[in-house]
Amino acid sequence: NCDKFSALVQSLDLLPAKNGEEQTMQFLLEVVEILTNYVRKTFDRSTKVLDFHHPHQLLEGMEGFNLELSDQPESLEQILVDCRDTLKYGVRTGHPRFFNQLSTGLDIVGLAGEWLTSTANTNMFTYEIAPVFVLMEQLTLKKMREIVGWPVGEGDGIFSPGGAISNMYSVMIARYKFFPEVKTKGMAAAPRLILFTSEHSHYSIKKASAALGFGTENLILLRTDERGRVIPADLEAKVIEAKQKGYVPMFVNATAGTTVYGAFDPINEIADICEKYNMWLHVDGAWGGGLLMSRKHRHKLNGVERANSVTWNPHKMMGVPLQCSAILVRERGLLQGCNSMSAGYLFQPDKQYDVTYDTGDKAIQCGRHVDIFKFWLMWKAKGTVGFEQHIDKCLDLSAYLYNKIKNREGYQMVFDGEPQHTNVCFWYFPPSLRGLPDGEERRERLHKVAPKIKALMMESGTTMVGYQPQGDKVNFFRMVISNHAATRSDIDFLIEEIERLGNDL
Amino acid sequence: NCDKFSALVQSLDLLPAKNGEEQTMQFLLEVVEILTNYVRKTFDRSTKVLDFHHPHQLLEGMEGFNLELSDQPESLEQILVDCRDTLKYGVRTGHPRFFNQLSTGLDIVGLAGEWLTSTANTNMFTYEIAPVFVLMEQLTLKKMREIVGWPVGEGDGIFSPGGAISNMYSVMIARYKFFPEVKTKGMAAAPRLILFTSEHSHYSIKKASAALGFGTENLILLRTDERGRVIPADLEAKVIEAKQKGYVPMFVNATAGTTVYGAFDPINEIADICEKYNMWLHVDGAWGGGLLMSRKHRHKLNGVERANSVTWNPHKMMGVPLQCSAILVRERGLLQGCNSMSAGYLFQPDKQYDVTYDTGDKAIQCGRHVDIFKFWLMWKAKGTVGFEQHIDKCLDLSAYLYNKIKNREGYQMVFDGEPQHTNVCFWYFPPSLRGLPDGEERRERLHKVAPKIKALMMESGTTMVGYQPQGDKVNFFRMVISNHAATRSDIDFLIEEIERLGNDL
Repeated sequence: NCDKFSALVQSLDLLPAKNGEEQTMQFLLEVVEILTNYVRKTFDRSTKVLDFHHPHQLLEGMEGFNLELSDQPESLEQILVDCRDTLKYGVRTGHPRFFNQLSTGLDIVGLAGEWLTSTANTNMFTYEIAPVFVLMEQLTLKKMREIVGWPVGEGDGIFSPGGAISNMYSVMIARYKFFPEVKTKGMAAAPRLILFTSEHSHYSIKKASAALGFGTENLILLRTDERGRVIPADLEAKVIEAKQKGYVPMFVNATAGTTVYGAFDPINEIADICEKYNMWLHVDGAWGGGLLMSRKHRHKLNGVERANSVTWNPHKMMGVPLQCSAILVRERGLLQGCNSMSAGYLFQPDKQYDVTYDTGDKAIQCGRHVDIFKFWLMWKAKGTVGFEQHIDKCLDLSAYLYNKIKNREGYQMVFDGEPQHTNVCFWYFPPSLRGLPDGEERRERLHKVAPKIKALMMESGTTMVGYQPQGDKVNFFRMVISNHAATRSDIDFLIEEIERLGNDL
Repeated sequence: NCDKFSALVQSLDLLPAKNGEEQTMQFLLEVVEILTNYVRKTFDRSTKVLDFHHPHQLLEGMEGFNLELSDQPESLEQILVDCRDTLKYGVRTGHPRFFNQLSTGLDIVGLAGEWLTSTANTNMFTYEIAPVFVLMEQLTLKKMREIVGWPVGEGDGIFSPGGAISNMYSVMIARYKFFPEVKTKGMAAAPRLILFTSEHSHYSIKKASAALGFGTENLILLRTDERGRVIPADLEAKVIEAKQKGYVPMFVNATAGTTVYGAFDPINEIADICEKYNMWLHVDGAWGGGLLMSRKHRHKLNGVERANSVTWNPHKMMGVPLQCSAILVRERGLLQGCNSMSAGYLFQPDKQYDVTYDTGDKAIQCGRHVDIFKFWLMWKAKGTVGFEQHIDKCLDLSAYLYNKIKNREGYQMVFDGEPQHTNVCFWYFPPSLRGLPDGEERRERLHKVAPKIKALMMESGTTMVGYQPQGDKVNFFRMVISNHAATRSDIDFLIEEIERLGNDL
């Protein structure tokens, strides 16, 4: 279709160019045609998930797809070709058989929300230039806090560029609560502060401890049970140990839905210890927070209402397009106190509207992308009940997978019992390994199985699923389901693919 | 048009629903019609920049626009109405007369790029799921480093969620370079570290000093000349003073394009001092970095090639849609060394492709939004020369404004001489103030002029421009031009509006 543009039409001919309206509309509609075709194919199981190429292949240039930037402009005709090629060589994260990440799926209303957000192209720092979005954020955060269980949704919060930053906020706020002088005097003003999180928790807590000046050695890793849940007694023992050394235990992260096992730490028991020793309790529900929307599954986060702060990423289990992560804080004022620098050029006290709606001084960012609208729009379109249905369906699917493979020949679960979240962790043993005695040789060979099957999967482009080692456990598959397009037949397909590709290894 | 949807059609009827394709395409095209109408009107000067309402008005609900979330789903028909209303009550940041922020304008190719990015909905942390985008980022960062002036574009870098985070990266990396043990042992492992930045610099440096555990008191503010440029002698004196106290001067931020005055610190002279005292030199070119694209204006950043790190936000002066900010680092390996946590579940060493392309372990984020594509696509469409033309045109316009008002009755420039960037800072004196003698009464009354005119401007919705106080200077207007749609007639209009609205104050 792009022969509607002659090779001479360039971006300079688009709006705001004089008489640029027609070309602009035509160009945008051409782009939309490319995008809607992509959307259509994304949901078509006869389309591949990806068309894999190595970096050097793409860098060398694929059939006229040249990634290099040049001094001179390209024609709009070529720009449309570039758009097509970009999608062609990418990965269809919305494909019903894409299971590779915690964020999967392509929600059509969410997509529309992102298109609108891009078109509005504004910034969350002040009500002045984002009045509607700022209010949507405020109402949505309040609703999330109500769902967490804080009375009348009291507290504070902000959307951040992802779970790692949200978790970083929690550590910063905790420090500000207990040692506000660190803001002005630095870590030298505080005693040696100790943070706690489980061995299975997300590495962002460790990143935060390094970045914020605590040091990773002052982040103590807690032991977990065989299901990946923190052992509260281990927390208490380590708190006592730290205190005996003269250190100050300050912060505990409880994970609601660990990245690999999908484990939920026992929040109530951890909260008891936090209260006893006066520590900040953060719940990292980046992955598991979504379960709060489900009457059937929210009990897994029992005690979350006792947390001082909660990370919850709608872009994971709730299927909102990337990026959409919230940090919720129970005590009002801390976020502002911790981060406020009162920049005169942005936050004028003498504006004509109620400036408490300006959010920028709460953030560690200055400019802040509008992450709220797609989420708000999806919530409008689905209702709370729609998110609940989505969550319940995904958990049902993972139960289906678990029941399908738990006793199937060639499979071994990484941990026993039904998963708490949609994470199903398992080893696949090709026939050649099944007769081998348990031992180093079998471990070494098994370690290579998942990477090999994954590589073959990517080359055939049929499906994608993650794998990793964990502790002393060799590489295993981690299946996760957050994709609303996935059905039982896709789960069946995944297992068939693993067996097809792994049978002869 | 949305009567094409009956009130019964809901988001559940869209893909991946069975037979959902037709409804999906129809819904997306309806959304696109709303968006393209918005785009069309954005460039139409007879359209208002905004339709101002107070927070309480929007919260109470405007003609059926209800921001509250509910348990039950809305129909798609209502979702389309919500989209229209969201745009209706927002601010047209792409309007030719929107001058309120450093990020303005609506680039059509950039917009198309964002739409595609939303549709691809993937994550930058691994090549595995963002092969094309990861390579685009790598090539673009290299090109930016070449333009900075580092030989063959050597070094490293990453796109971050904004200039504040990019600046935070620079402080983290500097600390890691000089005191790598802080990563594991915390700030206690380092002596008292001192950071330097100018009184006129962006508050994100202060936010970083608080967040990262240095403490804002250990950020020393440097004096500036009357144009807002750092006085290098003041830096050296304060470095010596800090050393005499036994502290360790570690990091200097030089701003290339300050937020309010648009001043460029003298980088070469600052670099000399940094070399002499072995300090990290960061150049915050969030706002001014774009001038590197212009042969005529890049001399203002002379010496930038001597920096250890550079922040450069294409979403400001280069007109790329929000968010798009790069942190560039001259020494390879530091970004990785500083932030790497080697999470096994994401960064498997046994993948089939060259895993040095996985970028996630360099970041303080885990998931990372694709900010590169719109920028890459704009660069393809404009070429390097197109960005240059854009920059030159904006600076010409600001010179036009400066020349227009510098001797105009009722105006006073905040600092003398032609601005270095597009920032034109000025007071407007209504006739009633012109006869008053310089003194406290005049100052107090003048302080109220800009807020009052701004409030009237927003209420009439005709244009938007920022104001703020600075140091001992009372509220003044800060005009900035990054909007590619603005012309001399829009500058003329702004001045007419200020006079129309301010004449009777």
